[in-house]
Amino acid sequence: MKIVMFQFSPAFGQVNENLETIGEALADQRADLIILPELCTTGYQFKDRAELAALAEPANGPAMKELSEIAAACHGHLVAGFAEESGSKCYNSAAFIGPAGTIGVYRKIHLFADEKRLFEPGNLGFKVFLAGQVKIGIMICFDWLFPESARSLTIAGAHIIAHTANLVLPYCQTAMITRALENHVFTATCNRIGVEERIAGQTLHFTGASRLVDPDGKILAEGSTDKTHVIVAEIDPGLATDKQITSENNILEDRQPDQYNLS
Amino acid sequence: MKIVMFQFSPAFGQVNENLETIGEALADQRADLIILPELCTTGYQFKDRAELAALAEPANGPAMKELSEIAAACHGHLVAGFAEESGSKCYNSAAFIGPAGTIGVYRKIHLFADEKRLFEPGNLGFKVFLAGQVKIGIMICFDWLFPESARSLTIAGAHIIAHTANLVLPYCQTAMITRALENHVFTATCNRIGVEERIAGQTLHFTGASRLVDPDGKILAEGSTDKTHVIVAEIDPGLATDKQITSENNILEDRQPDQYNLS
Repeated sequence: MKIVMFQFSPAFGQVNENLETIGEALADQRADLIILPELCTTGYQFKDRAELAALAEPANGPAMKELSEIAAACHGHLVAGFAEESGSKCYNSAAFIGPAGTIGVYRKIHLFADEKRLFEPGNLGFKVFLAGQVKIGIMICFDWLFPESARSLTIAGAHIIAHTANLVLPYCQTAMITRALENHVFTATCNRIGVEERIAGQTLHFTGASRLVDPDGKILAEGSTDKTHVIVAEIDPGLATDKQITSENNILEDRQPDQYNLS
Repeated sequence: MKIVMFQFSPAFGQVNENLETIGEALADQRADLIILPELCTTGYQFKDRAELAALAEPANGPAMKELSEIAAACHGHLVAGFAEESGSKCYNSAAFIGPAGTIGVYRKIHLFADEKRLFEPGNLGFKVFLAGQVKIGIMICFDWLFPESARSLTIAGAHIIAHTANLVLPYCQTAMITRALENHVFTATCNRIGVEERIAGQTLHFTGASRLVDPDGKILAEGSTDKTHVIVAEIDPGLATDKQITSENNILEDRQPDQYNLS
């Protein structure tokens, strides 16, 4: 299975330009699964809800339709972060897109900082989507800090956690090794690069360093902290099916929920 | 608050010798909390249940009483891994010991590999113990791989996770940075060093590298992979009380249990 992540710097508010950048980067690629950063069509730093509402679009809106054409040209599926309009509400979402259009949506459950005054919190839980036989779980950026996110996706059967991100803190990339190990899944963090300074005194530096980690915690591919990259890796998703890590230990069967205190 | 961890290589089956080693290492120390490795009085690799039963002792047995004298001399509390006899059963336990004796016990919930044929799985959940005003959570070795362990202790109020270990795999020490960050707690992994080769073909190399990590993921103190050390650090446990990591984000309040899939 071929995974392609495109790490780049989306231009704020320039949806058509961003789609063009994505299309050019992925031209002539074949991929089973493409992963793009969080809010990759619009950029990140909305000044207010009105600006967000003007740029948000439904899960089957025109930008997602363009991305489905890119998925079709690559002969695969695609995960893309976008600002989702749903009735009068907006979510920080990721679409799971096939050649014929958007198949489903994940809405970010753990909103970071100012996102709380812009977006509604996700209300669709952690579910998996099928790319052929392979189960794809999606989480977005700050979800990484909550081990419940990757754990929920693993229990739902995910082989690969597609982690679309606009990270500004330096901790996540190393932590994803732990997320992969503790769940024995592949994790694919596609993070953006670049700077946004649309609000005075709130300059955001995005940290790049997108990385694909295997179920044993090995980094299979990674990007730099500041350059545009198409990151490509071949994986065997079946490695994430077997949760037996010693002859006596199974990562899911060894859980002891009646001994936990998680309420 | 002064934390002391003693990383050493317990001699298998030599309980008195091990207590003497511990007593000498901690002589003239003052400490609020002392942490010793897993199974630190007996060693790790029991050949069978009979050998374990012969070396196990109750939570208020003679070895634990000697450790309480060491705690008294240091003017603090002590966490020590030991083989616990309870009726006809044995647990891989850690005692929380005060100057007057054992205050309580944690029994390892996630047993690793051959431990499953020797010990009963822990049945006391994840609870915290008081060292003055400071709440101490205890977990043992392989518990680290299950994020539910440190999370349960954090929800129970732990400021410090005393992690007593006999690690043989190389992943945990880095992962503890993630455990500290995701829970905004101090983690203190006291791991043993040395080699045990009591069963043909099953040589165990313990990985040392004990480390104390603060709630922001910073390593405050650490040991080497192969030397005996008394590791000392001063901490402010109050830093683990505040779970607010941005003005909008609180690590515990931001959890969304109704969106998780953890059954």
